[in-house]
Amino acid sequence: MAAARETVLVTGGTGFIGRQAVRQLTAAGHAVHVVSSRRGADVPAGVETHVADLLRPGERERVVAEVAADRLMHLAWYVEPGQVWNSIENVRWLEASLGLLRDFAAAGGRRAVIAGTCSEYGQHGGVCHEDRTPVEPANLYGVSKAALHSVAAPAAAQLGVELAWTRIFFAYGPGEHPVRLVASVARRLLAGEPAPCSHGMQERDYLSTQDIGSALAAVLAADFTGVVNIGSGERRTLREIVSKVAELTSGTELLRFGAITPPPDDPPLLVADVSRLREELGWSPSLTLDEGLALTVDWWREQRDQPGGGA
Amino acid sequence: MAAARETVLVTGGTGFIGRQAVRQLTAAGHAVHVVSSRRGADVPAGVETHVADLLRPGERERVVAEVAADRLMHLAWYVEPGQVWNSIENVRWLEASLGLLRDFAAAGGRRAVIAGTCSEYGQHGGVCHEDRTPVEPANLYGVSKAALHSVAAPAAAQLGVELAWTRIFFAYGPGEHPVRLVASVARRLLAGEPAPCSHGMQERDYLSTQDIGSALAAVLAADFTGVVNIGSGERRTLREIVSKVAELTSGTELLRFGAITPPPDDPPLLVADVSRLREELGWSPSLTLDEGLALTVDWWREQRDQPGGGA
Repeated sequence: MAAARETVLVTGGTGFIGRQAVRQLTAAGHAVHVVSSRRGADVPAGVETHVADLLRPGERERVVAEVAADRLMHLAWYVEPGQVWNSIENVRWLEASLGLLRDFAAAGGRRAVIAGTCSEYGQHGGVCHEDRTPVEPANLYGVSKAALHSVAAPAAAQLGVELAWTRIFFAYGPGEHPVRLVASVARRLLAGEPAPCSHGMQERDYLSTQDIGSALAAVLAADFTGVVNIGSGERRTLREIVSKVAELTSGTELLRFGAITPPPDDPPLLVADVSRLREELGWSPSLTLDEGLALTVDWWREQRDQPGGGA
Repeated sequence: MAAARETVLVTGGTGFIGRQAVRQLTAAGHAVHVVSSRRGADVPAGVETHVADLLRPGERERVVAEVAADRLMHLAWYVEPGQVWNSIENVRWLEASLGLLRDFAAAGGRRAVIAGTCSEYGQHGGVCHEDRTPVEPANLYGVSKAALHSVAAPAAAQLGVELAWTRIFFAYGPGEHPVRLVASVARRLLAGEPAPCSHGMQERDYLSTQDIGSALAAVLAADFTGVVNIGSGERRTLREIVSKVAELTSGTELLRFGAITPPPDDPPLLVADVSRLREELGWSPSLTLDEGLALTVDWWREQRDQPGGGA
């Protein structure tokens, strides 16, 4: 990490990935400001929260001018599971994200890291390289993120802002939305219920949110510009992932492979080529998949065992 | 043209191309509403003008709701010659255009035609086909228009709006910005001054604004969705274009080829494949290049001969 203390504005800083990034940035000594749409957001000590709806141009401009950050980490987006792929909310977030970049530059900002997605690569997927794999998104989420990148890169150059674009692969960790893969399987098995799964032969690249947050903080601290994949670089079948969760919960016999039909455009292989992240950024994960899943299952076990946690 | 009278909202309807489209739509019997950023815009009889700044979300939403149009023709954009290629205003117009599409759908709109550009094809250019020629824009103008198309197409599908995307090639006609090619050469030669030109060997596709307006009206009236080039389909060198202007003004000896260095990324050939426009839309130009240039030079001659026109 850079030794200098910077003022960093984080959008989505109370979200699943964002809260881990905020923790890392705070630990590194930065003055961290998060934007939240509601009061009373849970943030680490020393982090300043600003209440604003980023989709409202006036509120967005006000908070960005108020913070006058050196660096921006823009993670906020519409993320409702299932709805996210084709919701028109993606378009509103694209509009807001471009406005945010303009507002940040107008307020004197110098460096931005924006969250992209492996969905930019589209359904052909494969082991995805930042430059060599075509950008062919198959849904409005991937299309909107890819369009944001295509415009933000030359716009940032015009605005005098350094831009790093991070294509984030699959995430798991504490606080995940309960209908997403690792969370839903862990919760069902911890409750002693059967967990319906698809065939599970899809290969994916899963990284803990703790490590994704750490990688994002490393990209923000670096002088790297351009596109970088954020992933583990490891090919794992979904079957392997959920089987590990089952071992940690002694629930292997509750897995029901084949009970769910995957969507027709589900790519068989979607994994990050992480040579740029490892070699140019010098970053590597701190948790193995086994360690990360153990921490996550422990977290869900605590939720279950807390008063009201079984609901 | 469709026989039914439709309510049509036209943005950019007082501009170089837009005023010709408005004339065609009015002649076809539609109820035409234009948005203008200022009062007193010059519009044909029967056209209703709404004063609003489309870059202000509240004003945009208000005027779109007020008109509640069936059909939208969105031509407005930042068009300052020279500045247009890399101005950050392109990003603001991208944001506003996406918001406009959402507002139009929310107000019950059913069909939209949006102005794209041959700059989406980028500097390789060639004889450009809508599907076969790669979209590789080389500047922020082309990038922003291409990004708008990439998002507007799936967004319109989600919103239940039919979308036709028109890639407009090179335009000339009355009322052109005086620093653009045909206008600047015509004015200089009519004033008896030398007209500096580049080498002039670039091949382009020029169409009169009268015909571009007619083509846009035809696309709006059709049930076509997807991308369609708007051009003449004729390869003409810039040398040929300005030589015709010179013949019409008896100013051939005032042309100074080679006096201007073209930009390094100037494509040698940028011409529309118009088979889709001709065959699927059944549209063809009403003016030859000679006829269109004669009308244009006459218009500039009238401007010169009016009081104050020599300024």
